[in-house]
Amino acid sequence: MEESKISSSFIENLLKNERRSVARSISIVESNNSRSADLLKKIYNHVGNAYRIGITGPPGAGKSTITNQLTKLFRQQNKSVGIIAVDPTSPFTGGALLGDRIRMTDIGQDPNVFIRSMATRGSLGGLSKKANDAADILDVAGYDFIILETVGVGQSELDIAQAADTTIVVLVPESGDVVQAMKAGLMEIADFFVVNKSDRPSAEQAVSALKTILMMRDHDQFSWMPNIISTIASENKGIMEIGNEINRHKDYLQQTGKFLERRIDRTKIRIKEIVEDKIRNKLWDETGKNSLKASLEKVVLGNTSPYHIADEIIENFKNQL
Amino acid sequence: MEESKISSSFIENLLKNERRSVARSISIVESNNSRSADLLKKIYNHVGNAYRIGITGPPGAGKSTITNQLTKLFRQQNKSVGIIAVDPTSPFTGGALLGDRIRMTDIGQDPNVFIRSMATRGSLGGLSKKANDAADILDVAGYDFIILETVGVGQSELDIAQAADTTIVVLVPESGDVVQAMKAGLMEIADFFVVNKSDRPSAEQAVSALKTILMMRDHDQFSWMPNIISTIASENKGIMEIGNEINRHKDYLQQTGKFLERRIDRTKIRIKEIVEDKIRNKLWDETGKNSLKASLEKVVLGNTSPYHIADEIIENFKNQL
Repeated sequence: MEESKISSSFIENLLKNERRSVARSISIVESNNSRSADLLKKIYNHVGNAYRIGITGPPGAGKSTITNQLTKLFRQQNKSVGIIAVDPTSPFTGGALLGDRIRMTDIGQDPNVFIRSMATRGSLGGLSKKANDAADILDVAGYDFIILETVGVGQSELDIAQAADTTIVVLVPESGDVVQAMKAGLMEIADFFVVNKSDRPSAEQAVSALKTILMMRDHDQFSWMPNIISTIASENKGIMEIGNEINRHKDYLQQTGKFLERRIDRTKIRIKEIVEDKIRNKLWDETGKNSLKASLEKVVLGNTSPYHIADEIIENFKNQL
Repeated sequence: MEESKISSSFIENLLKNERRSVARSISIVESNNSRSADLLKKIYNHVGNAYRIGITGPPGAGKSTITNQLTKLFRQQNKSVGIIAVDPTSPFTGGALLGDRIRMTDIGQDPNVFIRSMATRGSLGGLSKKANDAADILDVAGYDFIILETVGVGQSELDIAQAADTTIVVLVPESGDVVQAMKAGLMEIADFFVVNKSDRPSAEQAVSALKTILMMRDHDQFSWMPNIISTIASENKGIMEIGNEINRHKDYLQQTGKFLERRIDRTKIRIKEIVEDKIRNKLWDETGKNSLKASLEKVVLGNTSPYHIADEIIENFKNQL
């Protein structure tokens, strides 16, 4: 399957933030084929100017509203904003539930805002790679801020944190929400917390529970201590404070050299993903799939084990790679 | 690193359900090294007698209580039960939050019940393989039923569904719980639903919302239509009905040939996982890690892209595999 290479005029239009080229480029990296690698190879030396913000938290915490309001704040500061909203969806139906996006139509009309939803279709591990790739596209198109937003269920929030310079975890003051966030591993990825809907009666309690947990962790006077910002995003309360905290964290990263450190880590994880992705595609191409299918019968008939078959497949793969 | 092979006396003890050998065997498959593959190769022709039940749902839905009560029911029917409780934990701290397990001490004293918690440590894709492997251990040890229990966050519930013959999704009648379950992809994996804590006022509404969604899906007179069982697990109400529904689903699978179909699918996914796992371990062994580290600098200095480096690594890997 020969695919046409990405033309230099296409790249030029992308670098000029020509809207259709940006949209088309993200579709290309989402498709994750050889054109995608070609495109990303060609733009690589333009990547690195945008600041990347991850926003995650449990369903219903108000992430979309905060993204929306934060975008408006950035626009008032004359900064352009690219938004990638990752919807972890059912791997069986493949459909994204984009209801939340509808609320964004007001910022969606702004030519200096680019919004894109990505459905993950339950693809194991593919999300981080695609979100990173899409962020690169928005980066070279010249967006000042890139917001990566996802619901914190299982893996996607880790992928987002891995792709972001600053990660914000949004919680609501519901009973047990803090504990659940702890269980879901959200505590470790947060550069700071937002307790949204903070007009609810249990808000103070949620904030103090968070503080207690944060204090219990290992930290010294030099380490970053995540703050907790209380907001009522629907009334635009506390959004300015989020903006300030992002700046404070950015300064911290740059002054301590951690900014580069994070980006090196990110690059490392990314190279690994690209390598594994390519090998996986090669492993289960037409030949690989057929060979697996042929072996299945032997296992199901009880003549051999999955572990024996795996050894055989790897042995054959040596000659394919 | 030479590891000792699994002895035939060890296997014999496992097949006799010698408790310490079972525990040790699960630790071996959790460690996922060459001894693990050796063990699983040696027991494979004994696997396949146990019936595997997956129980998943959002945090706090009462999965542990249901597992507990269902185990008691099976014991009354003189069946032995192996339980694997999968705790998706933080990939950063690695600690499992096993509070729920404490409630299980009453069944934990029963010699015909084996309980094991597995922490997933955020390992991408490793859960399904390890849960399957651990289920195989309990299977050859002779347990009649194996219950795989996990909180439905992101990926783990899909892994569990993939490993189970019958998957039960537990919900509570909270506002929005049904919608969240839909978003999380729980609707597609359920062979039937349990609405627990059904004495709450909104229970009827939750059941009818579920019914509406289920009716909307494609189905014909021959396809399996998931039932909805209302329970109050803490009072042991509705547990017998869960037991009956498991039997009804088992009969359906066997009468339609889907039982074998599911197990073939499971074997296929499993072989793929074993292959990818082995290749990944080889890719990022000492040599691979060092080569990646050496390349990182070039990328960070802006001399090349992750995609170029990935190509190089794969080229070198050909000679390593």
